[in-house]
Amino acid sequence: MSDKPRYLLVDLGGTQVRVALGDSAGDISGRQEERTRVWDGPNGVISQIARMARDACAAVGAPLSDISCLVIGAPGPLDPTPGIVFGAPNMPGWDEVHLADDLRSALDLPVFALNDANAAALGEYSFGAGRGHKVLVYLTVSTGIGAGVVLDGRLIEGVTGMAGEIGHMTIDRHGPPCPCGSIGCLEVLASGTSIARRFRDRLAEGETSAVTEWLEGREPTAADVSRGAREGDPLATAVFADAAEALGFGLTNVIHIFNPDIIVVGGGVARAGRLLFDPVEDIIAQRTMEIPQRAVRVVPAELGDDAGLFGALAVALERCG
Amino acid sequence: MSDKPRYLLVDLGGTQVRVALGDSAGDISGRQEERTRVWDGPNGVISQIARMARDACAAVGAPLSDISCLVIGAPGPLDPTPGIVFGAPNMPGWDEVHLADDLRSALDLPVFALNDANAAALGEYSFGAGRGHKVLVYLTVSTGIGAGVVLDGRLIEGVTGMAGEIGHMTIDRHGPPCPCGSIGCLEVLASGTSIARRFRDRLAEGETSAVTEWLEGREPTAADVSRGAREGDPLATAVFADAAEALGFGLTNVIHIFNPDIIVVGGGVARAGRLLFDPVEDIIAQRTMEIPQRAVRVVPAELGDDAGLFGALAVALERCG
Repeated sequence: MSDKPRYLLVDLGGTQVRVALGDSAGDISGRQEERTRVWDGPNGVISQIARMARDACAAVGAPLSDISCLVIGAPGPLDPTPGIVFGAPNMPGWDEVHLADDLRSALDLPVFALNDANAAALGEYSFGAGRGHKVLVYLTVSTGIGAGVVLDGRLIEGVTGMAGEIGHMTIDRHGPPCPCGSIGCLEVLASGTSIARRFRDRLAEGETSAVTEWLEGREPTAADVSRGAREGDPLATAVFADAAEALGFGLTNVIHIFNPDIIVVGGGVARAGRLLFDPVEDIIAQRTMEIPQRAVRVVPAELGDDAGLFGALAVALERCG
Repeated sequence: MSDKPRYLLVDLGGTQVRVALGDSAGDISGRQEERTRVWDGPNGVISQIARMARDACAAVGAPLSDISCLVIGAPGPLDPTPGIVFGAPNMPGWDEVHLADDLRSALDLPVFALNDANAAALGEYSFGAGRGHKVLVYLTVSTGIGAGVVLDGRLIEGVTGMAGEIGHMTIDRHGPPCPCGSIGCLEVLASGTSIARRFRDRLAEGETSAVTEWLEGREPTAADVSRGAREGDPLATAVFADAAEALGFGLTNVIHIFNPDIIVVGGGVARAGRLLFDPVEDIIAQRTMEIPQRAVRVVPAELGDDAGLFGALAVALERCG
């Protein structure tokens, strides 16, 4: 069952920006997607979003005056209450950007902002792999590791909206430094960036790998390491296995801390499938306390690139339904 | 202002059991404290609690028929909804003990059970160091490391009541094994037991310490290591500093995960005061993201041994007010 689209939904990332309309039946329409115009700075990107919002309305024949609010997921650190982005690693110049206020001015609509990984967590909880569950932990293992936690339908946000940074949980206090300033964070051990970097480092130290044969001179990515591991290359296997082990310890921690009934793992690295999930599940089986272990399942994300838009829709349904 | 005592409050530990009455003004009276009769098994301890409950009522002249409920904090793993203890490390034979049902039968009262560290967390939140705060993380650094997390007045419990096990968060995946089955947990790096054990191990490896001079042949405890560190003994200083560093990483993780406004640290090891808190705060200052770091304070617990009773009172006020 579809309904009249009433909500503008935005998923802002450092690479792509997506805008769509949502309705009260949980359907999404009028999808717009563009490369984020980061080179134009915050004001340029805000203008881009406003234009795409009008395009989305035009695409489905919904006048802007029929829209009741706009919800935007954006990279953080972001404080959702004032809707301010305090600095996004992939978006230069995004330092104390009043995203909610600026979009409100541009479109004359109520605007709610939240962290992008939190939006995706809420999307999977309400419309994806987490439907029907009570306590969900979502991780996206990609360039970095974003995460969000939903307890009984509510995101945990903390006092300044920055809770749920599971990617910046130290699991190896003698490990490598993380760009966040800490040491041995899950992100610096298991993200796509770190998998690629550790593989390159070991090549630079003189180890060899069949992966180099298909690179034709370009730098290896996490996807190359994953492919190499699938094809049995020993170096790629070792690097990928180490990242999977780190993720396994990260999820063991998550189970001890949140006692969830579902952990949803998305992001590019999760596309490795069983190559990632099997060793992660082995660590969980070996290392997690019995009762919370029996209560949880680890599953791949279902909504892919739409998770953030669906999360924005979940917020819209609650806040401006 | 005091009121008529209406709630029975119990704090059950492997060493001591405390029982008191609470009233709706937040006051506690009729305190009873005994050594836990663990040698009598679960039924013996349940009889002991029932007797102490009657003694507490008699002590303040409150008939049992005036009591509206009993709330008990007990060692876990414990599932609060059925009120079942699944096994307490210091209480042999406590395997699937139906604590809430058995106490209900013994006293003919509604009974609510919760994990002891969760009770203490709620006590500090409602009546102690956490008053007026929004998101509290409580840790008791003692024989083990117990913890509880309160978000907007509600404990996080997870799907089987076992959330908040921050002591069993791996912060060194290449570290020593933890009795819980995992590796390099905060508890195995920073609890009183682990401080004493690592000190003994290093003595056994041939290192020397002035601490041995006052031991007179007995085994060193964490309190001895703390005293040695305070007096400048190099080995005691190194062992204590390593535990404090581990705790600092643990709290950095807690800040990234929960973005709390207050972290309350209790338990015997916290009695070391600045010797513990200074290095912990140094790690937090170095390793934690700026915005959540600015939002939080780390403070000592205020309620000491009464934290669990006050937590039980907070539950009573909410559940059977």
